[in-house]
Amino acid sequence: MKEINYLLGYKNLKIVQDKEMFKFSLDSILLPNFATINKRYKNILDIGTGNAPILLVLSTKTKANLVGVEIQEESYNLAYESVKMNNLDNQITLINSDIKDYARGDITEYYDSILCNPPYFPYLTSSEVNKNDLKTLARHEKSLTLEDIMKISRKLLKNNGNLAFVHRPDRLVDIITLMRANNIEPKRIQFVYPKEGKDANILLVEGTKNGAPGIKILEPLYVYDNNGEYTNKIKKYFE
Amino acid sequence: MKEINYLLGYKNLKIVQDKEMFKFSLDSILLPNFATINKRYKNILDIGTGNAPILLVLSTKTKANLVGVEIQEESYNLAYESVKMNNLDNQITLINSDIKDYARGDITEYYDSILCNPPYFPYLTSSEVNKNDLKTLARHEKSLTLEDIMKISRKLLKNNGNLAFVHRPDRLVDIITLMRANNIEPKRIQFVYPKEGKDANILLVEGTKNGAPGIKILEPLYVYDNNGEYTNKIKKYFE
Repeated sequence: MKEINYLLGYKNLKIVQDKEMFKFSLDSILLPNFATINKRYKNILDIGTGNAPILLVLSTKTKANLVGVEIQEESYNLAYESVKMNNLDNQITLINSDIKDYARGDITEYYDSILCNPPYFPYLTSSEVNKNDLKTLARHEKSLTLEDIMKISRKLLKNNGNLAFVHRPDRLVDIITLMRANNIEPKRIQFVYPKEGKDANILLVEGTKNGAPGIKILEPLYVYDNNGEYTNKIKKYFE
Repeated sequence: MKEINYLLGYKNLKIVQDKEMFKFSLDSILLPNFATINKRYKNILDIGTGNAPILLVLSTKTKANLVGVEIQEESYNLAYESVKMNNLDNQITLINSDIKDYARGDITEYYDSILCNPPYFPYLTSSEVNKNDLKTLARHEKSLTLEDIMKISRKLLKNNGNLAFVHRPDRLVDIITLMRANNIEPKRIQFVYPKEGKDANILLVEGTKNGAPGIKILEPLYVYDNNGEYTNKIKKYFE
């Protein structure tokens, strides 16, 4: 069953969602707010667009051409409806394809920035695989490994272009190792904590193609305050 | 000129320091408070002991044998005086040696835990080298590189033993990459921030020899509150 929601606090943006599918999450709001958005950027790619929450938020922050590649036809269709509904057809291009096929083409060193909210759990055991296939694809590294993302980004990014993504902190070592191994030097990290006194549960990381070594750890971001309300910093992302 | 100070808030511990030398810093207090200290630990090593602040703090937390290796004779002498003065000769053994020579010996898989507050700046340009040689040795990777520390730790640690150290966050990628490359899997990280709204300026990291992948990012630690006073968490370390 489809439903139309406002994209959290982005009051002028609507998003089409399917109750049975993997909905947009806080991650999709955090990532485009974390990523470096330079005024000179011409082309930005979102890998694994889903129903396009990241592209919708990006449209409020940049005039660059926004491209989203999504493998699942159902998600692509929802994204398409959202883009139409928000009159963003001129800025956002959606492609219903496996990103691996898209990247195999002639396209190379084209993007100023790539964003990705990738599948989270290593595709290891059948017990971990959700029975709903759409959710499985969205959540697991079944169709796209971390290494795939690095290799694709390396090909598609301009020199000094940025790859930003959101992941679970427990994969920090894998991510950082793979980024450097693919000449995407990690430059900025922000950890997100559910509230004070807890371990981080979201990792935001950005690397620069052929960047020099040296990384900044930004101030921590708390999602909830001690009253269970969104903190002011999170509220700001919704305004 | 020598002076005797109380080891910050550790009111029963005194430490001998030389005004011309590299004094103990907050790092030396943070590290032994961050490191895992298990009751079953029998032997703990501190690489680059200096005037022994880390060993003195550790003596309040564990009954294990504590060994400190320090290359500089002047620092070793100060450490020796401090250990004597605090009547810790039975628990703390000091060795005036290059850790590389110490590790070349028969000793292997002996330590449950290794702590290290290593030299901070890569030894690159002559302009970076402080004219005071003692400070130079203590601050620069002149005599001991990060890779040296990893290789030495790998040899000296028991299986599943821990290496904890304190460093600058901008070296995060180097550190994590080198740890994994030497079979010391990073398992816990804590970032220390000077105060709210600033980037992290201290990195605490612990890895386990032959540990399984997967890392925890502990809650952030702020040194100062908005009034410029130590935060309660930092004050707790001094009690």
